[in-house]
Amino acid sequence: MNRFEANLRIPGPTSLPDAVREAGARQMVNHRGPEFAVLQNSIIARLKTFYKTENDVLIVTAAGTGGLESAIVSFLSPGDKVLAVTIGAFGDRFAKIASAYGADVTKLASEWGKAAEPAKVHEALQAGGPWKAVLMTQNETSTAVTNPIEALAKVAHEVAPDALILVDAISGLGAVPFETDAWGLDVVVSGSQKAWMVAPGLSFVAVSPRAWEAAAVAKMPKFYFDLLAHKTSAEAGQTPWTPAVAVMFQLEVALQLMEQETLPEIWKRHAAVGAAVRAGLTTLGFKLLADPKFASDTVTGAWIPEDLDWKTFNGKLRKYGLIVAGGQGALKGKIFRIGHLGHVTIPNILNAMAVLEQTLIELDRPVTPGTAVAASQVAALKALGVTK
Amino acid sequence: MNRFEANLRIPGPTSLPDAVREAGARQMVNHRGPEFAVLQNSIIARLKTFYKTENDVLIVTAAGTGGLESAIVSFLSPGDKVLAVTIGAFGDRFAKIASAYGADVTKLASEWGKAAEPAKVHEALQAGGPWKAVLMTQNETSTAVTNPIEALAKVAHEVAPDALILVDAISGLGAVPFETDAWGLDVVVSGSQKAWMVAPGLSFVAVSPRAWEAAAVAKMPKFYFDLLAHKTSAEAGQTPWTPAVAVMFQLEVALQLMEQETLPEIWKRHAAVGAAVRAGLTTLGFKLLADPKFASDTVTGAWIPEDLDWKTFNGKLRKYGLIVAGGQGALKGKIFRIGHLGHVTIPNILNAMAVLEQTLIELDRPVTPGTAVAASQVAALKALGVTK
Repeated sequence: MNRFEANLRIPGPTSLPDAVREAGARQMVNHRGPEFAVLQNSIIARLKTFYKTENDVLIVTAAGTGGLESAIVSFLSPGDKVLAVTIGAFGDRFAKIASAYGADVTKLASEWGKAAEPAKVHEALQAGGPWKAVLMTQNETSTAVTNPIEALAKVAHEVAPDALILVDAISGLGAVPFETDAWGLDVVVSGSQKAWMVAPGLSFVAVSPRAWEAAAVAKMPKFYFDLLAHKTSAEAGQTPWTPAVAVMFQLEVALQLMEQETLPEIWKRHAAVGAAVRAGLTTLGFKLLADPKFASDTVTGAWIPEDLDWKTFNGKLRKYGLIVAGGQGALKGKIFRIGHLGHVTIPNILNAMAVLEQTLIELDRPVTPGTAVAASQVAALKALGVTK
Repeated sequence: MNRFEANLRIPGPTSLPDAVREAGARQMVNHRGPEFAVLQNSIIARLKTFYKTENDVLIVTAAGTGGLESAIVSFLSPGDKVLAVTIGAFGDRFAKIASAYGADVTKLASEWGKAAEPAKVHEALQAGGPWKAVLMTQNETSTAVTNPIEALAKVAHEVAPDALILVDAISGLGAVPFETDAWGLDVVVSGSQKAWMVAPGLSFVAVSPRAWEAAAVAKMPKFYFDLLAHKTSAEAGQTPWTPAVAVMFQLEVALQLMEQETLPEIWKRHAAVGAAVRAGLTTLGFKLLADPKFASDTVTGAWIPEDLDWKTFNGKLRKYGLIVAGGQGALKGKIFRIGHLGHVTIPNILNAMAVLEQTLIELDRPVTPGTAVAASQVAALKALGVTK
């Protein structure tokens, strides 16, 4: 362990508020007993308000990828035509899961760093079908791009009204504006270690009534990730398999903290830290990966300049306690990413910028002390509406 | 929550030692960073000593049922002939997972409460085949029976030498004698919330070289539970999907505690608490479910007498802080179970017996104060070798 307190700036697991951390140390309870039922029911009711849904929300003990698998295998059958709208590594993963279970997947990929275009989705939907499902990523963690899900879902509803809309909202839901019901989304997956400020181990899945209709006839093989089994158990205040109880203790506390802050304030804070990171990195001379129109407010990716020795640079960042993430998939070794979701404050970002400045100056790069911090601060103040 | 400290006597999640609990409150680290690799490598090395194996051991973020699914889908193909030796609800579940993914499953079931008989396994193996795998349960949590795995594996090796032996050791491994390599077991699954004294959320799977050979050609659909993906990631000190980091923090501490106690002492302690529970319950007039020759030392099941109102009885037990488990599958409502694995001491059992005595006396049943406690103590002392 680093002997300095870390500024954990990866896009999940995020750092945990003290009260959340401490709830992870509680003693176990009977997961088939009344205390657990109260806990789970309370968590589900709270999750629904953040999902903005009246649909069922189920808790699956797994990483987000397990949640995505549950979204595929619970509602689809081998041979089903699926349009996978992908803008990066996680969109590709969602498509790969569907293919692994025998779906007939058509991939609609965008250039990495770009969002999906509603017109192209329209075109792709019209060119094929009949579609059983459309897969989309709300916030593509690998490229730091947020998709216009509302517009994409609208197109899907128009062109393929019978298709289920399955959304990977793992790294954005709870941090940036999202509407499950108003946008007509059938299955929406998230994960505990992202905006929810909780340790990893739980995935959440919202399921619409028409998705349940599909579940009744879905033929993909499944057992652990069978959401119908989860639904039946949830009605009795339980889970079908032993749940990650300690992570649920943390989640209950984190949801209370989120309620105290309120969702509009959470969204505003993420808009501010996102703007701050982008302004600071740009001032430091980094080229950002994401199309500015669709830049994510939960994670930012920047190209590693050819003349910067990444290992040396990252080693120094680590020495100062700043932990960032590398690139994924095709971007491995080419970019680095700064996570800014969940338990993140503007001072966390200013600290990150100060460390980046310090490190670049130590490496003899042309950086003026304080400039990235200042740029971040100005951008954050503007995003918060404090200044114009 | 009950305002008295609970005596959590269910067969998992078990109560956690304080040092283990507290590790669940640690701050997050980068699961793709060097600190995590050190943690995971240390955990895996320690797990291997308790598994008594030099095979790979992999960590899957899921309940034990997810570990069972990984054992099926990673090594088998649809149509493979599988003999499922089942002695209860969890053996049935293992068989059901194999069937769900298209294996050609032959079930060899025993009367509930009995162990599997090597001679019958011999017969069943000879009557069919060629067998790709044999499924067995080390410790059947639903019936409180421990199978003679060594003898069953020996028969399988003799009659079906090419068959992989897949063992559900979720609720016994780490508590009662078990030898992965000496018994020639190919795939062995356990779960964090059992003998390991850790919160639920992790499953462990040991994999033999010949199982890896099978994995290379296995055709069942899979993604999250693909153990080959876990193997590749583990070689880089990672997991393929974000792991339950906080549960791993707990596991590292729990394994250190287990090392301090030593495996022979852990086995002896479980033999003593098992004997104590059986003696106490028998003295109280309960009829035990399990064949005494194969009674489990991690969980005990007792029939609920027809003239005992279970809800009233259990409500009083809860009031005194004693949390027991009900029956599962076909035994639901017919038995109750007392868990005694992991973080369990002889005084925990004497407390449970005192509460049972007290409650039965309050319900006007013919129980003499102190008799069950005394019988438990005598049995424990004998099992420990203190008395004869």
